Amino acid sequence: MTCADHAQRLAEQVCAYLYAHDDVSQSLGVRIASVAPGEVKLTMLVRQDMINGIAICHGGFIISLADTALAFASHSDNLRSVVSSLTIDFVSPARYQDTLTACAKQTTHTAKISLYDVCVYNQHERLVAVLRGRVHRLGEPVLPVPLS
Amino acid sequence: MTCADHAQRLAEQVCAYLYAHDDVSQSLGVRIASVAPGEVKLTMLVRQDMINGIAICHGGFIISLADTALAFASHSDNLRSVVSSLTIDFVSPARYQDTLTACAKQTTHTAKISLYDVCVYNQHERLVAVLRGRVHRLGEPVLPVPLS
Amino acid sequence: MTCADHAQRLAEQVCAYLYAHDDVSQSLGVRIASVAPGEVKLTMLVRQDMINGIAICHGGFIISLADTALAFASHSDNLRSVVSSLTIDFVSPARYQDTLTACAKQTTHTAKISLYDVCVYNQHERLVAVLRGRVHRLGEPVLPVPLS
Amino acid sequence: MTCADHAQRLAEQVCAYLYAHDDVSQSLGVRIASVAPGEVKLTMLVRQDMINGIAICHGGFIISLADTALAFASHSDNLRSVVSSLTIDFVSPARYQDTLTACAKQTTHTAKISLYDVCVYNQHERLVAVLRGRVHRLGEPVLPVPLS
Repeated sequence: MTCADHAQRLAEQVCAYLYAHDDVSQSLGVRIASVAPGEVKLTMLVRQDMINGIAICHGGFIISLADTALAFASHSDNLRSVVSSLTIDFVSPARYQDTLTACAKQTTHTAKISLYDVCVYNQHERLVAVLRGRVHRLGEPVLPVPLS
Repeated sequence: MTCADHAQRLAEQVCAYLYAHDDVSQSLGVRIASVAPGEVKLTMLVRQDMINGIAICHGGFIISLADTALAFASHSDNLRSVVSSLTIDFVSPARYQDTLTACAKQTTHTAKISLYDVCVYNQHERLVAVLRGRVHRLGEPVLPVPLS
Repeated sequence: MTCADHAQRLAEQVCAYLYAHDDVSQSLGVRIASVAPGEVKLTMLVRQDMINGIAICHGGFIISLADTALAFASHSDNLRSVVSSLTIDFVSPARYQDTLTACAKQTTHTAKISLYDVCVYNQHERLVAVLRGRVHRLGEPVLPVPLS
Repeated sequence: MTCADHAQRLAEQVCAYLYAHDDVSQSLGVRIASVAPGEVKLTMLVRQDMINGIAICHGGFIISLADTALAFASHSDNLRSVVSSLTIDFVSPARYQDTLTACAKQTTHTAKISLYDVCVYNQHERLVAVLRGRVHRLGEPVLPVPLS
């Protein structure tokens, strides 16, 4: 198994583990679309119970989706990290039955901190929101047992 | 009923309405501690299922709590609004069985936009996180029927 | 000299030192209005050369003023620090001959990081902009020689 | 002259105009490295008077450089705009005699708002800081007379 294969397999295992322990994401119908080292795509269908009185998706659900994508991407190297700050900008509304895709990607990293950008699109590739997160890596493993 | 009484009663009714329609907050055990016009306090007990592998509360739950407080406060005048951007800074970790209180307060408003600050404390009044949200008011009512 | 007197005198000396070495602030006409430990007020008159083609003050000058107030306040304990991130929200425009006041204040601090809020007002106490900065303290002194 | 040629020429003329009227950028030694519609690169040499007591460049100069790149890029279509909010994250320090390059690029735009990302690198292509700005377009021209 090459180094790249190993990193890919590790990323998949960590995200599967995080997803299995993430009740909120499951109840929101979040699904993992793709996983690579430092890069994760999640999808979520905008349900009727996510719609507010002006017929658009509550921002809180979009934040949850984007923040989950950030968390999955930032742990994909199997090292624990904590978000120190994040900023989200809403660009255009999401509507009932839209399928949102959140793409989280590491854009820079130093010894201690990494930055991640998350873009949330709808099914027409229209940008709904962008999130930038600042992450401090702690160095402890996420997965309780080493990869077999 | 004075103007202030009316504003107070309206704020309470809107928040009760929003809470009743907010499945996520209910499943997270969020409770309304106090409501006033432009100012809302919510509480949440940090449960075992909110704890990650390094024994601290997942940031996503703290964001959900703070964002909900922002949403309740920004709608407490019964006018629809949308968040255009928000920034959250994490200051100190929350732990198992902490009771978190999120205090959202309008700090400024102009004809079109308002800013809200949300502070999240634990039960020892230690600051856990601060959120600042930029809100655009739309002018449509939240409550489907006028106050009786 | 009491502890509070000493902190106050130290804050004044550090800010005077920083100001003396800050060519940009001087060329912008920034003045120190008041200094206290962790809290600094600066003023700036909006000059003709700060006005853009739509008759409002360039945002860059307001950022410079607010960021300088943050720097002065965060060094007022004579310990070096670095800003890791900051967010500024513009609320209302500043105009020709407005006198802007930037009030920077420490709102929280832990062993390693501090948060500062800066509010920029015009002479009618109208809020022009708010800045929030995240600061890491390094522990080295600012002033090259100890206080006499 | 094609549409693309026209947009390119317009962007160059607007940036030259803005630069000619920008005393601060000139006094900081900011230079225009390249201009294209929605995308501007500026450079700045870190001088001795930009260095603080811990031998790194003051953050304020980096903010000025990045914010200027944002302003030039967001006006490159000859339409006035105002920044409503921006966030800057500092990633690694800049040092004496570093040549910093700020690359500002429009990442999204809707009818009313646009987002710009600015990355600041040193001469070794090491990332120093990232800035994200939210811009509202106003629709008035920057250049006082139309292009000839």
